[in-house]
Amino acid sequence: MKTYLYHHSVPFQDTDMAGVVHYTRILGYAELAEHAFLLELGILPISKSGGLPKVHVECDYLRPLKFADDIAIELSLIKFSPRSIHWGFQLTANDEISAKGKLITAHVDVNGNPSEMPTQWQSLLGE
Amino acid sequence: MKTYLYHHSVPFQDTDMAGVVHYTRILGYAELAEHAFLLELGILPISKSGGLPKVHVECDYLRPLKFADDIAIELSLIKFSPRSIHWGFQLTANDEISAKGKLITAHVDVNGNPSEMPTQWQSLLGE
Amino acid sequence: MKTYLYHHSVPFQDTDMAGVVHYTRILGYAELAEHAFLLELGILPISKSGGLPKVHVECDYLRPLKFADDIAIELSLIKFSPRSIHWGFQLTANDEISAKGKLITAHVDVNGNPSEMPTQWQSLLGE
Amino acid sequence: MKTYLYHHSVPFQDTDMAGVVHYTRILGYAELAEHAFLLELGILPISKSGGLPKVHVECDYLRPLKFADDIAIELSLIKFSPRSIHWGFQLTANDEISAKGKLITAHVDVNGNPSEMPTQWQSLLGE
Repeated sequence: MKTYLYHHSVPFQDTDMAGVVHYTRILGYAELAEHAFLLELGILPISKSGGLPKVHVECDYLRPLKFADDIAIELSLIKFSPRSIHWGFQLTANDEISAKGKLITAHVDVNGNPSEMPTQWQSLLGE
Repeated sequence: MKTYLYHHSVPFQDTDMAGVVHYTRILGYAELAEHAFLLELGILPISKSGGLPKVHVECDYLRPLKFADDIAIELSLIKFSPRSIHWGFQLTANDEISAKGKLITAHVDVNGNPSEMPTQWQSLLGE
Repeated sequence: MKTYLYHHSVPFQDTDMAGVVHYTRILGYAELAEHAFLLELGILPISKSGGLPKVHVECDYLRPLKFADDIAIELSLIKFSPRSIHWGFQLTANDEISAKGKLITAHVDVNGNPSEMPTQWQSLLGE
Repeated sequence: MKTYLYHHSVPFQDTDMAGVVHYTRILGYAELAEHAFLLELGILPISKSGGLPKVHVECDYLRPLKFADDIAIELSLIKFSPRSIHWGFQLTANDEISAKGKLITAHVDVNGNPSEMPTQWQSLLGE
C-alpha cells in the first residue's frame, strides 16, 4: 500500500475558543497531505481536465490538537478505480494518534460531471 | 425524533477554485445548525462547565453547493447518553439533497476530560 | 451616501483560542455585507463578465467579538468609479463599536485584468 | 530593522471561486510569519501571561496568488513599545510582489485588558 508522510505545524488561526484545532480544520489537514502526495506523483488535483472533489469523508477525533503542535499526517492509498480514489489518513502529534479517517474522491470533468481519470494517473497511482 | 431546520446562504468566502463550497465548510454548516439547535433548547455548547467537541464526523457529498445557494440544514437528534450526543444532518439546496452525514459529540469538562453532561441537558434534549 | 445594514451572529468556528473572533474572520464579515448589498442592488459580485477582487483593506479592531454575539455590520458606499468601489464598514455588537475599516475593490474581467464595470452597475450604485 | 523570512505553499482550501487566494487568507499568512518569528525569538504569542491581538491591519493586494504558489513572506519589525508591536509584511511569489501591508498588535493580559508586555520580550525584540 502506497503511503505518504506530510508534516504540518498547527497555526493559531486553526484553533477555536475551546483552545484546540477545530474539527473542520483537521479534515482540511488530510487534504494538505492528499494534494502534496498527488503533486509529488505528478498528478494535478485540479486542472483543465477536471478535478477530484471529495464525495465522502469520515474522521474519528481521538485527542485534541493545539497551537504549534507538530503533526505527522500519514496518508495511505487504500484503493482506486478509473473514477475514484480511497485514502486513509492518520494524524499523530506528541507521539499519540490524534485523528484518523478516510477520504473518497471522485474524478469529474471541468463541468463537474463524473468522468474517468486520465489513464496516466492510474499508472502513477499504481506504480 | 427531535429535528431542527436551519437556513444558511452560501458566502463567496466558502467557495474554492473549483467553484463550489469546500468540503470542510460543508461540515462546518452542520455545526451552525447544531449550535443553533442547542442554544434554542437552552444549552450552551461551550461554557465554564465544559464543552461538546466532535469525536466523530462523516459526510456524503451528493451535489455541489455554490455561492448564494440557500441551504436548508435539517438536523436530527439520533440519540444521546450522559456522555455523548449523536446527530444526523442533511443539507438541501435547489430542491436536491446536497450532503448528508453524522456528528457525534462527547461531553468534556473544562480540562477536556470526558464527563457527564448536566442532568438538566438530558431533560432538555429528551423533552 | 448609500448605506446598508447586515446582521450576523458569530459562529463558534470563527473564534480562536484567545476566545474571540479571529481578525481575518472580521474582515470576512465585511465581505458578507458587501456581497449582500451588491446582490440587493442587482449586481453579481462574480460572474462571466468578471469580478470585484479586493485591492486594499484596512481595519481597526476596537473591541473583541465573541461566540453568539449579534453583529450589525454597517456598510457605506464611499465612492466609485468605472474601475473601483470604495466601501467603509463598521461592526457593532452589544451596543459598542467593535471594528471599523475600509475595502477597495477593483473591477476585473474574467482573465483577472482591470476593466470597466458594466455601465448599468454605475447607475445601480449611483441611484 | 529586524526582518524574518517565512515560506508558505498555497493550499487549495485557501482559494475561492475566482481561482485565487481569498483576501482574508492572505492576511492570515502575515500571522503565520509573525508567529513563527515570535516563537523563534522565544516569545509565545499567547500564554497564561496574555496575548497579542491585532488592533490594526492593512493590506494592498497587487497580484493574485494561486494554488501551489510558493510564497516568501517577509516580515519586518517596524517598531515596538511596552504595549504594542508594529509589523510590516510583504508577500512575493513568482518573482513579483503579491501583497504588502501592516499589522499592529497590542499586548493584553489574560482578561483581554491592555497591559505591558514582559520586560524580557522587549529585550528579545530589541536585540
